[in-house]
Amino acid sequence: MSEAMPTSNRAHDSELDQLCANTIRGLAMDAVQQANSGHPGMPMGMADAAYVLWTRFLKHNPADPSWPDRDRFVLSAGHGSMLIYSLLHLTGYDLPLDELKRFRQWGSRTAGHPEYRHTPGVETTTGPLGQGVANAVGLALATHYLAAQFNRPDFPIVDHYTYAICSDGDLQEGISHEAASLAGHLKLGKLVLLYDANDIQLDGPTNLAFSEDIRMRFQAYGWDVLECDGHDVTAVARALEEARATTDRPAIIICRTIIGYGSPNKAGTSKSHGEPLGVDEIRLTKQALGWPLEPPFYVPDKVYAHMRQATLDGPKQQQAWNDLMQRYREAHPDLAQRWDQMMERRLPAEWDAALPTFEPNPKGMATRAASGATINALAPLAPSLLGGSADLGGSNNTAVKGAAPLKAGDFTGRNISFGVREHAMGGIMNGMALHGGLIPYGGTFLVFSDYMRPTIRLAALMGIQVIYVFTHDSIGLGEDGPTHQPVEHLAALRAIPNLYVVRPANAAEAALAWRIALERRDGPTALVLSRQALPITKRSVAQENGLPLASVEGALRGAYTLYDPECCDAILIATGSEVSLALEAATLLKQRQIGARVVSMPCWKLFAQQDQVYRDSVLPPEHRVRVAIEAAISFGWERYVGLDGAVIGVDRFGASAPYKEIFKHYGLTAEHVADAVTQRVKR
Amino acid sequence: MSEAMPTSNRAHDSELDQLCANTIRGLAMDAVQQANSGHPGMPMGMADAAYVLWTRFLKHNPADPSWPDRDRFVLSAGHGSMLIYSLLHLTGYDLPLDELKRFRQWGSRTAGHPEYRHTPGVETTTGPLGQGVANAVGLALATHYLAAQFNRPDFPIVDHYTYAICSDGDLQEGISHEAASLAGHLKLGKLVLLYDANDIQLDGPTNLAFSEDIRMRFQAYGWDVLECDGHDVTAVARALEEARATTDRPAIIICRTIIGYGSPNKAGTSKSHGEPLGVDEIRLTKQALGWPLEPPFYVPDKVYAHMRQATLDGPKQQQAWNDLMQRYREAHPDLAQRWDQMMERRLPAEWDAALPTFEPNPKGMATRAASGATINALAPLAPSLLGGSADLGGSNNTAVKGAAPLKAGDFTGRNISFGVREHAMGGIMNGMALHGGLIPYGGTFLVFSDYMRPTIRLAALMGIQVIYVFTHDSIGLGEDGPTHQPVEHLAALRAIPNLYVVRPANAAEAALAWRIALERRDGPTALVLSRQALPITKRSVAQENGLPLASVEGALRGAYTLYDPECCDAILIATGSEVSLALEAATLLKQRQIGARVVSMPCWKLFAQQDQVYRDSVLPPEHRVRVAIEAAISFGWERYVGLDGAVIGVDRFGASAPYKEIFKHYGLTAEHVADAVTQRVKR
Repeated sequence: MSEAMPTSNRAHDSELDQLCANTIRGLAMDAVQQANSGHPGMPMGMADAAYVLWTRFLKHNPADPSWPDRDRFVLSAGHGSMLIYSLLHLTGYDLPLDELKRFRQWGSRTAGHPEYRHTPGVETTTGPLGQGVANAVGLALATHYLAAQFNRPDFPIVDHYTYAICSDGDLQEGISHEAASLAGHLKLGKLVLLYDANDIQLDGPTNLAFSEDIRMRFQAYGWDVLECDGHDVTAVARALEEARATTDRPAIIICRTIIGYGSPNKAGTSKSHGEPLGVDEIRLTKQALGWPLEPPFYVPDKVYAHMRQATLDGPKQQQAWNDLMQRYREAHPDLAQRWDQMMERRLPAEWDAALPTFEPNPKGMATRAASGATINALAPLAPSLLGGSADLGGSNNTAVKGAAPLKAGDFTGRNISFGVREHAMGGIMNGMALHGGLIPYGGTFLVFSDYMRPTIRLAALMGIQVIYVFTHDSIGLGEDGPTHQPVEHLAALRAIPNLYVVRPANAAEAALAWRIALERRDGPTALVLSRQALPITKRSVAQENGLPLASVEGALRGAYTLYDPECCDAILIATGSEVSLALEAATLLKQRQIGARVVSMPCWKLFAQQDQVYRDSVLPPEHRVRVAIEAAISFGWERYVGLDGAVIGVDRFGASAPYKEIFKHYGLTAEHVADAVTQRVKR
Repeated sequence: MSEAMPTSNRAHDSELDQLCANTIRGLAMDAVQQANSGHPGMPMGMADAAYVLWTRFLKHNPADPSWPDRDRFVLSAGHGSMLIYSLLHLTGYDLPLDELKRFRQWGSRTAGHPEYRHTPGVETTTGPLGQGVANAVGLALATHYLAAQFNRPDFPIVDHYTYAICSDGDLQEGISHEAASLAGHLKLGKLVLLYDANDIQLDGPTNLAFSEDIRMRFQAYGWDVLECDGHDVTAVARALEEARATTDRPAIIICRTIIGYGSPNKAGTSKSHGEPLGVDEIRLTKQALGWPLEPPFYVPDKVYAHMRQATLDGPKQQQAWNDLMQRYREAHPDLAQRWDQMMERRLPAEWDAALPTFEPNPKGMATRAASGATINALAPLAPSLLGGSADLGGSNNTAVKGAAPLKAGDFTGRNISFGVREHAMGGIMNGMALHGGLIPYGGTFLVFSDYMRPTIRLAALMGIQVIYVFTHDSIGLGEDGPTHQPVEHLAALRAIPNLYVVRPANAAEAALAWRIALERRDGPTALVLSRQALPITKRSVAQENGLPLASVEGALRGAYTLYDPECCDAILIATGSEVSLALEAATLLKQRQIGARVVSMPCWKLFAQQDQVYRDSVLPPEHRVRVAIEAAISFGWERYVGLDGAVIGVDRFGASAPYKEIFKHYGLTAEHVADAVTQRVKR
């Protein structure tokens, strides 16, 4: 695989092509050297292929990186960030050369790895390997879905590709296997992956750890597999043409490249992978490439003139699309209206009224079931909402009833079967959200949020609207036992910045949890839902266990006083299934002449965002007899109960048994809570 | 794929074979029905193949499930737990029929999913899909490694196979791809995977989400692929013989089966997958199988007589091995001694003295470098220690210097290249630990602990000794930016029950962190290490910033008072790189006439296990001016600072820049800490 590239084909590469590719190499070398940190080898190796893609194929308008019908480009191998920064700069995005000179510096727009929203033209945040591949699958899935919804004869208003560059490391990560398998299954013809096959990874040659037959592997997934010399511009162009022509399945182009191409002593070795080449080697490399040694960050005028053609072509292409869209609005006004609604992820005025209400019911209802009812009530009003489950649709209640499955050849369906692929599901949802037009949701058991955690983190980091439907939220799932019972997951999710974790106490709060998730535009929300039935409270003042309760609307503030006794001796704070337990305990305590306020706290982060006056009204600072109750690890609850309070939680793994048995053995009973409070009040 | 199985081959199955397989089916149906919860379909579908494996191939001794040279059996599709419980019972393990009748009940030994240590003969805890496949790869890897270490001509003392049964779901999970890819790369000939290809998963037919060519996929990974009718006992036996004969690579047998085999109305559908068949359907199924309707849990005497042959053969086989081992002890006494040492994971008496010491050094040393030095000091003394990195060996400092890489065909090497496969690394380490003889360790960046989280949880749940080397532990990694900077990971890991998280403050504490990890036998330890250099303190009373310091030996108690001023006005609690920051702040505070105690708290869980007197001596309950400092999310620290203290942490994502810049901008400076304390003391 590491044989020298044939030079005979080089005749096809014009001098200008080489000049452009070498400009990228020079910028990458110089920026990494100046930062004294970074990865020069990958941009140098993929400079030719990326240059071809960006100048001959990519449909984009550097002046408007948000044009809906642009092609999407994902640099999954995000460590090669200087490749995309060079391309963005050279093709005329708002990324001046000075920013490239400030690579990896505080406040620059050229972060170590490409970051969405941080740099114009960066479609997704990459760096953690494999993620970009799944994002690309999500982007392409969104394209196919929207095309099926909106395209009409003579109106191909959704007509773009997703291109992604990935590395050996990307293809070693499990998420890339999962995502590629699903992309093949769904036959996503609008997806083209360029694999930078350079036989080198950080620790040395890939053959230290990697000997897959990539061609066979992707054929097994149902992909079209192409291969070319990644330094032969003509060959890359030919492969890209073929890949685009393959419309009935995704395509991967195996680009055989030399990492650190041009460096006399470090090309083809891991020495060019993750550190600066060094001043001397850069000099030798520039000499070898016939490149002027000075100035650093050199860009020949001819290169600007050629590559900035995008600033002329892009606006024309976008204008043509705008014109098409104008005609579309006339020909298909209803669809156009729906298009606008979806692109803005807008909810109609009546949506709040459409949220289901739940009648008080002695048997109660699982919050997962209430979530399912909410999804079904909202689906017709919120066309952007598109999701499914990782093979737990029946348990997660994620299906839109009566809607078809989304499948290869027919993307009009609304239920996605992600398969048992939680990690890819998360990465694909990120891609769907990044595409625009969609609010993705995906379901699995809460315990398996672990499988998709890297994607949740990235959604939070990017600040994109993604909704997780995590059911079976505690030991309350019962017989499946400790492998399926989340214990530490609430804490672990709450620890992620910018992620809302909402654990509703009952069906009414569950509907509001969906409202929180849908109204939030700047970040992901995890809904944490019970398997078991929970008592249903009215939306307005209600009775439960003989206590007068406040409206559950308070849930929209993250936490609220659900029951307030006349005299408050203690505060019980609970979430989800433990709220009704707290109410039961308050009833017992009332009989003991102890007034226990019950606070339902479905979402910590929302509560933290309320003003101090409100927060103090719910948890008066002077009140220190506080007991938190949650069927989960106590870790973190001291934020609310302090050193003088108590947490009644589950500080060990679960057990396999009918759930009521487990709650009893684990001390999650009204009696135990009441006793703990009584003891503290008496102190 | 779902065509009816050919019946012509059935002639090969003797009546007894069918009787045995149907006994398993009956037990599975009845147990799930009695529990009113569980998965009957898989055990019913794989009954024939598993029966063949267990009665004709598996080398085991039901009386001694810990015999080192037994074959390992992994039920990766752990939801089919009644399959393994039936096999264990029928072949004579200490699992009475009464336990099967108490399937999924409180206190029974038949939990919802198979649990290691909970049930004799269960080799690993499974249920979360894909994990068992990686465990099996780890078990086989351990076998190959130990065989290379110990086998000598005429002394095949390590000579066993690992068999695993996996499902469609297992093969959809990314971890199975990663693990299978590495197993193929390493050519693990002692590994045989039986794939229960029944075309059904929980949400319906697998073709909803899954259309891989499994044969081609595994060939792409370098496996031998076999295929058979999973209900044809003779065909399964033939395939197993072939798979065992393939010694130069792992083998997968695609067993075409019918889920819920025998059930007239539910076989071949997802209705038999995850819920009881129902009383009526069980009746119909028993009739169809020619099975007596009563009693439930029926086991014909002939079946016991046949399957309990294992209780006669097993001891003989083990005795033969014992005899071999006895001769081995005479022929190779040094090796035998080493064998005993490894099997007990024993450390020699001199190991503590071998821990490196680090001279005070103004430039300091990164704790990852100190960890690397410790690994290299201990490797010769602790032959059980075997590990590597997920392609970050150079950064994680995990390599044993001078040792060869472990590779296909030569398992004498001691450095494992896991590739960019963190999840598989975690699952493989679990398998290595479960095998016995090894203490596995594996490195990656702390931020990528997210990729392997499900495996860490399982190590903690199983209580096995696995060591994680997580370097680049905070924003202190600098330029790589927020995708690579862990923020929430310390909290997320601390939240996992039974996992030690140790974040040493300097090189000396880093050596002790290894000591903690190696002395701990009943659970995993995560070492959390800095990329950047940290000041080195002496092991005995030392000076730092002009303050007299206590011995770092206190780290062994989880937390200790590192610096104690004469008059204590405030307590600073810190971990890792922030301990030296706290010491600097204490110096500043001293100049302001404020006495600030500095507590280094490398391991919360260890500290929590100390007695109350010690804990109160470090953190006197009455002292409420407490400030925690950690370059991570503040979440959780209120456990130690309460409602009246403060946490100086990082409550947002990181940024790309040289790390000193980031620390400054994020307020992690001695001045800021000192000011925060001053303000609080003055209140």
